[in-house]
Amino acid sequence: MQFTSERRLDDGVLEHDFTLGGIPGVLWTPASASGPVPLVLLGHPGGLRRMYPRLAARARHCVAEGWAAATIELPWSGDRPPSAAAEAARADLRRALEAGRPVDDGIVDRLVLPLVEQAVPEWRAALDALLALPGIGGPVGYAGGVISIGVRLALVEPRIAAALLFAGSYVPRAVFEEARRVTVPLLVLLQWDDEGNDRQVALDLFDALGSQEKTLHANTGGHTGVPHFEGDAGNRFLARHLR
Amino acid sequence: MQFTSERRLDDGVLEHDFTLGGIPGVLWTPASASGPVPLVLLGHPGGLRRMYPRLAARARHCVAEGWAAATIELPWSGDRPPSAAAEAARADLRRALEAGRPVDDGIVDRLVLPLVEQAVPEWRAALDALLALPGIGGPVGYAGGVISIGVRLALVEPRIAAALLFAGSYVPRAVFEEARRVTVPLLVLLQWDDEGNDRQVALDLFDALGSQEKTLHANTGGHTGVPHFEGDAGNRFLARHLR
Repeated sequence: MQFTSERRLDDGVLEHDFTLGGIPGVLWTPASASGPVPLVLLGHPGGLRRMYPRLAARARHCVAEGWAAATIELPWSGDRPPSAAAEAARADLRRALEAGRPVDDGIVDRLVLPLVEQAVPEWRAALDALLALPGIGGPVGYAGGVISIGVRLALVEPRIAAALLFAGSYVPRAVFEEARRVTVPLLVLLQWDDEGNDRQVALDLFDALGSQEKTLHANTGGHTGVPHFEGDAGNRFLARHLR
Repeated sequence: MQFTSERRLDDGVLEHDFTLGGIPGVLWTPASASGPVPLVLLGHPGGLRRMYPRLAARARHCVAEGWAAATIELPWSGDRPPSAAAEAARADLRRALEAGRPVDDGIVDRLVLPLVEQAVPEWRAALDALLALPGIGGPVGYAGGVISIGVRLALVEPRIAAALLFAGSYVPRAVFEEARRVTVPLLVLLQWDDEGNDRQVALDLFDALGSQEKTLHANTGGHTGVPHFEGDAGNRFLARHLR
């Protein structure tokens, strides 16, 4: 893990850019802390530069609780090398949507499964590196999309104590099966009027998740219209599990 | 409004029993307050004595925020005179459930519509009396079931600033139509595994509600298994609207 730059944001937040095996990432930490702090991994749909304003806002919200927050770029996104197979799957999705055709399981599998396969080990490697830093302890939370990545991470990574997942509907059948075996406390955020997601599929996935503590927060509004108060609600959820 | 007894609970809460036109009710207030306080009306399915422990717990939670809380008995419940028509509708419901028959619209209408017709003016009269008390100001929130009463109250009573509704599925078609015209901020609580409610009907009602700020909190567990943290979440919702 190589730190490439550091900035002090105006509200007592240190923002550190890093790379890990060529993958760009950002770590946010409290400018002052009396000991090792819990960590929240911030998930996103890929494209760190484009997502930066939203990620930084969520990170500041975490740091205000006394936690660190971190994210890494997804495979084949942003400045990382593209994948011909991922491009082809995205093109198939676009064509299906433009033609008003249903997005079949084959497209969803080709779009999402390789991403999960590639991303999850990278996030786990980032977790190894981040938890080895002197100021960062545990427990660890995950917060964000892609929901299939969040589900797999929650299932296979025992250091994840709780996950706040952004609902999505391009979810492979295989991930539904994995969802049934997830046991960590979950909060799922669903935008009720999300123009790009199938509400029923999102509700079916919520239903499938195996965790005993499982909460859905559904709000009016489109994909990017998550109300401001869900930031606080998310922190309260994470705070219950990051002690 | 006639106050019949008053107790001081151990956490600085005053509990006042009252009757209003023969209807029993309970008012909870902070033992000390520097001025008029907001009021939360606590809805319930009827039977004040049976519901008392849960209502008192929710009331204490309100008073801890500096609000008053109040409730009245529902028509034909608890110590109030029964209604032959309501008894007959309940018996029809029981028979349908025992026989595994679908509960048709006719039963739901006969069970719920007269209750709404009778209860809503009573709650509005209670509101008149409560807001005339020296220590109680506004704004006013509603929190609880019966969801059809909550919907009607939210629609017709302009003093209700926000409503926290417990999802239910015995909802007359007429109430669905009213739901579309509700505009106050809403938080709907749904128990995902509620043995006595149809989840899809509850989701359809949430979908129908017209409010621009509308949030659903769904949690694992049966009808009475609402997680403890929803008490805090409910208070945060009400606090945003009872300033």
